[in-house]
Amino acid sequence: MKIPESLIADFRKEKVFLLAAHIGPDGDAIGSCLALAEALKSAGKTVFVYDKDPVPECYRFMPGHRSFRSTLGKMLSKNPLVVLLDCNSPERAALEGSAFRKTVVIDHHETESDFGDIRWIERASAATGLMVFHLIRAMGIPLTKTMATNLYTAIAVDTGTFRYSNTDPDVLRAGAELVEAGARPGTISEHLYERWGENRFELLTRTLGTLQIRDGIAIAHVTKDMLKKTGTTESDTENFANFPRIIDSVKISVLIREVDNGRLKVSMRSKGTVNVATIAAAYGGGGHRNAAGFRIRADLETIIKAIFKSGRAVLSQS
Amino acid sequence: MKIPESLIADFRKEKVFLLAAHIGPDGDAIGSCLALAEALKSAGKTVFVYDKDPVPECYRFMPGHRSFRSTLGKMLSKNPLVVLLDCNSPERAALEGSAFRKTVVIDHHETESDFGDIRWIERASAATGLMVFHLIRAMGIPLTKTMATNLYTAIAVDTGTFRYSNTDPDVLRAGAELVEAGARPGTISEHLYERWGENRFELLTRTLGTLQIRDGIAIAHVTKDMLKKTGTTESDTENFANFPRIIDSVKISVLIREVDNGRLKVSMRSKGTVNVATIAAAYGGGGHRNAAGFRIRADLETIIKAIFKSGRAVLSQS
Repeated sequence: MKIPESLIADFRKEKVFLLAAHIGPDGDAIGSCLALAEALKSAGKTVFVYDKDPVPECYRFMPGHRSFRSTLGKMLSKNPLVVLLDCNSPERAALEGSAFRKTVVIDHHETESDFGDIRWIERASAATGLMVFHLIRAMGIPLTKTMATNLYTAIAVDTGTFRYSNTDPDVLRAGAELVEAGARPGTISEHLYERWGENRFELLTRTLGTLQIRDGIAIAHVTKDMLKKTGTTESDTENFANFPRIIDSVKISVLIREVDNGRLKVSMRSKGTVNVATIAAAYGGGGHRNAAGFRIRADLETIIKAIFKSGRAVLSQS
Repeated sequence: MKIPESLIADFRKEKVFLLAAHIGPDGDAIGSCLALAEALKSAGKTVFVYDKDPVPECYRFMPGHRSFRSTLGKMLSKNPLVVLLDCNSPERAALEGSAFRKTVVIDHHETESDFGDIRWIERASAATGLMVFHLIRAMGIPLTKTMATNLYTAIAVDTGTFRYSNTDPDVLRAGAELVEAGARPGTISEHLYERWGENRFELLTRTLGTLQIRDGIAIAHVTKDMLKKTGTTESDTENFANFPRIIDSVKISVLIREVDNGRLKVSMRSKGTVNVATIAAAYGGGGHRNAAGFRIRADLETIIKAIFKSGRAVLSQS
């Protein structure tokens, strides 16, 4: 992992930062933002953290999560250094249409554009949180317990708590240092995996009831009506796409959510070398090999058929 | 972690070893035995590995698992150094009634007896596999890919792949070294968690559909008819009782299985200090505080009502 020298120089020099994570933020986006924000603040900087979408319920144990603002407000008038975390285009960060003095991108996803005056992209990194961990260390800022909790959560979420194939020695050693700095793996895992509401579990049961499995591809869906009947919201579907992975024959697991009139949000997870990022890219979405997604205005049945077809094509090449 | 010097001295000196794991072996017992056996063989020793019970299906990806013998046969006539792994009494290792020249115990459990000429007990160690990892290193034996796979699996199983509160920096650093030595976390996790048949998943979905939650108690059931319709057997319900634990409000999770005409098998899981062993005992069953069960000839609806009542009584005392 090679941090651009210009990035560290700018982070030392600049006084005001706007950290922006991607829309529909996950644990890696949130944890990376919050840990970096705390580190920069501890170095005397003024830091804003921005995400257009709210922090999902399941991540509201993360220290400092209330500091996220969902509108830009007057933040840009402070002329901040704008830092995109866990995403690499202004659209993904809901920052399109604004002009910025200078921008930095810190991400581990496939790049969607050449946005960013300084671009630090590590496609081989398991999590943006792992990059932020190395950045904070490189800047010589001591890790606090709250930073460690946010970074451990970020890494845990993007590695399936060390279950995915992106779990490399760097991930595990960073985990060890974060535990030494105060992160508590048992407590974090309980928050991530055992704090469901009864209605969320009811939604999961109903969602698994929609599962269709064909040729190694599992597709489940969540309609607005299912959310209404169980008293849940879209954020309650977080992680649902992973459940069908426990089936041996399933190489690609897909969750389709009806987000608003006629718009669908598609999340895909794959096993091993099966690359779902290519499917996402074909539909104008993004992500990485084993976790990618896109949004589309389409009829549910039509998109299910289309994904079965795209999935078969990807599997035939794997 | 402090390895007794006498243990290393004996391991260097002795020529023939009998490694024995506990009855009903889990991943930690199996992985510890297999990795230590390979290490000792590579140092020119003759090594037998023994477990009275077969290696469960889900662990049959572990390298060398076929070397386990389920009877002592003529092994004892070779006058081996007997090593108990992941257990500390002859009974747990199904070795009672035999006489041994010299015995060694390597374990992280509470001791049940003072058995063992050399006793290396580390209650704070997350896994026996972690102890064996340090032992192999201390003996200066290079870690092979197969040893690393067995030890990583051992540690993964006993820490819930780094989810339980026993996940400490030593566990994570050992994980990093084992990955460097060739263990593949993604592949191992797939073997451990993602090898379900589609019909088993279908049974899970149907079972969760029967879930009733009241006053912190979740009860689901599996009928003979559900098994028939999904083409599954009772062993496919293994672990089902744990799923409702992900609900925050659920303190007791119960799975009731119809085993044959009118007979029900009840499995109970609880969180924290909630004691379900007392409920099991009241019905003539057994188990531990957080996992217990019983069998009863009764009507399903009647027993569900009775368990809700017993559960409420236990929760009111917790």
